[in-house]
Amino acid sequence: MSGSLGYVETQRVVLATPDDPLRFRAGGRLDHVEVAYETYGRLNEARDNAVFVTHALTGTAHAAGLHLGAKKRGWWDTMIGPGKPVDTDRFFVISPNILGGCSGTTGPLSIDPATGRAYCLDFPMLHMSDLVAVHRRLLAHLGIERLYAGVGGSLGGMQILQWVIDDPAAIERAVLVAASSQLTTENIALSTVAREAIMNDPDFVNGRYVEQGVFPWRGQKVARMMAHINYVSGQALEEKFGRRRRSAGDAWELGPDFEVEHYLQHQGNTFLDRFDALSYLYLTRLLDYFDPFAEPATAQALGSTTTRFQVTSFDSDWRFDTGQSKRLVERLEGLGVDVDFAELHSTQGHDSFLLEPAGYHERVAAFLA
Amino acid sequence: MSGSLGYVETQRVVLATPDDPLRFRAGGRLDHVEVAYETYGRLNEARDNAVFVTHALTGTAHAAGLHLGAKKRGWWDTMIGPGKPVDTDRFFVISPNILGGCSGTTGPLSIDPATGRAYCLDFPMLHMSDLVAVHRRLLAHLGIERLYAGVGGSLGGMQILQWVIDDPAAIERAVLVAASSQLTTENIALSTVAREAIMNDPDFVNGRYVEQGVFPWRGQKVARMMAHINYVSGQALEEKFGRRRRSAGDAWELGPDFEVEHYLQHQGNTFLDRFDALSYLYLTRLLDYFDPFAEPATAQALGSTTTRFQVTSFDSDWRFDTGQSKRLVERLEGLGVDVDFAELHSTQGHDSFLLEPAGYHERVAAFLA
Repeated sequence: MSGSLGYVETQRVVLATPDDPLRFRAGGRLDHVEVAYETYGRLNEARDNAVFVTHALTGTAHAAGLHLGAKKRGWWDTMIGPGKPVDTDRFFVISPNILGGCSGTTGPLSIDPATGRAYCLDFPMLHMSDLVAVHRRLLAHLGIERLYAGVGGSLGGMQILQWVIDDPAAIERAVLVAASSQLTTENIALSTVAREAIMNDPDFVNGRYVEQGVFPWRGQKVARMMAHINYVSGQALEEKFGRRRRSAGDAWELGPDFEVEHYLQHQGNTFLDRFDALSYLYLTRLLDYFDPFAEPATAQALGSTTTRFQVTSFDSDWRFDTGQSKRLVERLEGLGVDVDFAELHSTQGHDSFLLEPAGYHERVAAFLA
Repeated sequence: MSGSLGYVETQRVVLATPDDPLRFRAGGRLDHVEVAYETYGRLNEARDNAVFVTHALTGTAHAAGLHLGAKKRGWWDTMIGPGKPVDTDRFFVISPNILGGCSGTTGPLSIDPATGRAYCLDFPMLHMSDLVAVHRRLLAHLGIERLYAGVGGSLGGMQILQWVIDDPAAIERAVLVAASSQLTTENIALSTVAREAIMNDPDFVNGRYVEQGVFPWRGQKVARMMAHINYVSGQALEEKFGRRRRSAGDAWELGPDFEVEHYLQHQGNTFLDRFDALSYLYLTRLLDYFDPFAEPATAQALGSTTTRFQVTSFDSDWRFDTGQSKRLVERLEGLGVDVDFAELHSTQGHDSFLLEPAGYHERVAAFLA
């Protein structure tokens, strides 16, 4: 029997200080890094039942359960809970907000203690290893040496991959869903248009919008509308909205009329409340540059790991399509890594990893069992 | 032997006047419509060798040959010329700029004689039939009753389809390349994001930007960058740019670095010089609403036509994919219309119709022979 978690709370911890700063792979350092995270379930005495969950581009630490007073459950509540694939009756689950994010963990809008002003564009460029370095500090803070599993979808899966590369002994089982080891040229192309929309918004003011009391809402809205199309499948849009309109007959207009247009307006507008433009720039850029198999140290690290991988793609995903998962699997297998790969059927595109297409939860549950 | 046309000139003609206004299908009228067009080759005595070429979203009347002093030949110079598929030794070719465009034919930035100001958002909403009505007036002006052929790619092909519906006896052969009879929900979704980028640009000023001496350049650039990705294939981008960067190693930046980003910047910027934002809004919207088989008159019109159709799609086109051509072909065949359909292989996406993938020109030439 599976149930749901009850009330949960986000916690915070300081994981970098002037005495122990966080140094970034592509240059720069932070003397103060705070991390927001949640935990579900209990750590056993052997401290060997920890499962680390890493979120995707715009996620938060709130992966499961309910915040007091909230109506909506955590973003992966279908996956995490008592009796669910990431079973909180069995596992101690750790879910932080990622470095560079805007939901409690230090990011571009955080205050630089050296200046008393927000970092904005002075925030260091992010490498996947920088995110992993913070995860590792969090794990150490919790007194855990080795993870039973690391689980992530999309950018979340890419953090788990980098973690195995950076510390090949840290993770027993790695679950990567709808991920990639290298963005395609088209991925980068779509990503750069989203950033262009944000950075050319007059209210971006060179990244110092917070201090000016403005926000690049127009650009951020366009970026999200575009990205949202990229996350869902054409078939899903077709089935959900077809060509239904709000106007009738020849009462045509330039502004939103088809239902899919109103839907995208809604997606764009609600995104403004929950995400920051600078975090969007930094995190999409991190994805563009991510290319671990181009780094010399990767082969050696993966050649020595005992981590078992499970890689899953969805056939309607055109954000990170099956071809990208297959390339990742080939690279891993070429280095002798144990990989269980499957492409699952789903009509829901990239967002499938957040949903429950047939066979998906069973597959993750079996791998973690 | 095929050669190229020499110097050509754009001509202009007034095709609607207060005594003979153009009435729009979705409401509204224009008392003055001017059309820019070019012709190539000679009309024979029987007046039965005319081929009408209709352009795509951002095209112009200048389809072939060279303007005096210009470096670039017309946009379909590979297709039109002596000995080419649309053979100017044999055919009299007519190529106008479409209604609502911004290259000589009346559009939203034209001056409304009633007010002395540009129409801007007071320009009537466009139906495909309105474009065809102007084409038909141009044909009558040239003293031609019936076309040997109508030839168009993308939106161009859709004009030819509508023309057969509106006047089933007018066209002997209809050549439709990379076209559609009904945009998908995803097509509309991408289209609405482009319009959002333009209309939410602060310099759009409710469409009256010309009078304010500003232009919604930021939004228009984003719209074009996005559309451009839609016009090319992921494979073509991959082959052309891969992950090549201008910076080296860990010298990362948020702004353009990968070659594909610089390429899109260039595409976005050059588009600003050659196209108008209001025309972009009106013409993309015309496409969204285009749905001739949903109109009762269509079945009757097509049931009686003797027009022979040739429909061609390209396997890497994700703007108007083969599925859309197939649906169109099924609809036509269901009404007893003679259709020759083929999907051709090309790695170049939607833009293939402007290029020369294997078998394409031969196919069009054979159909017109």
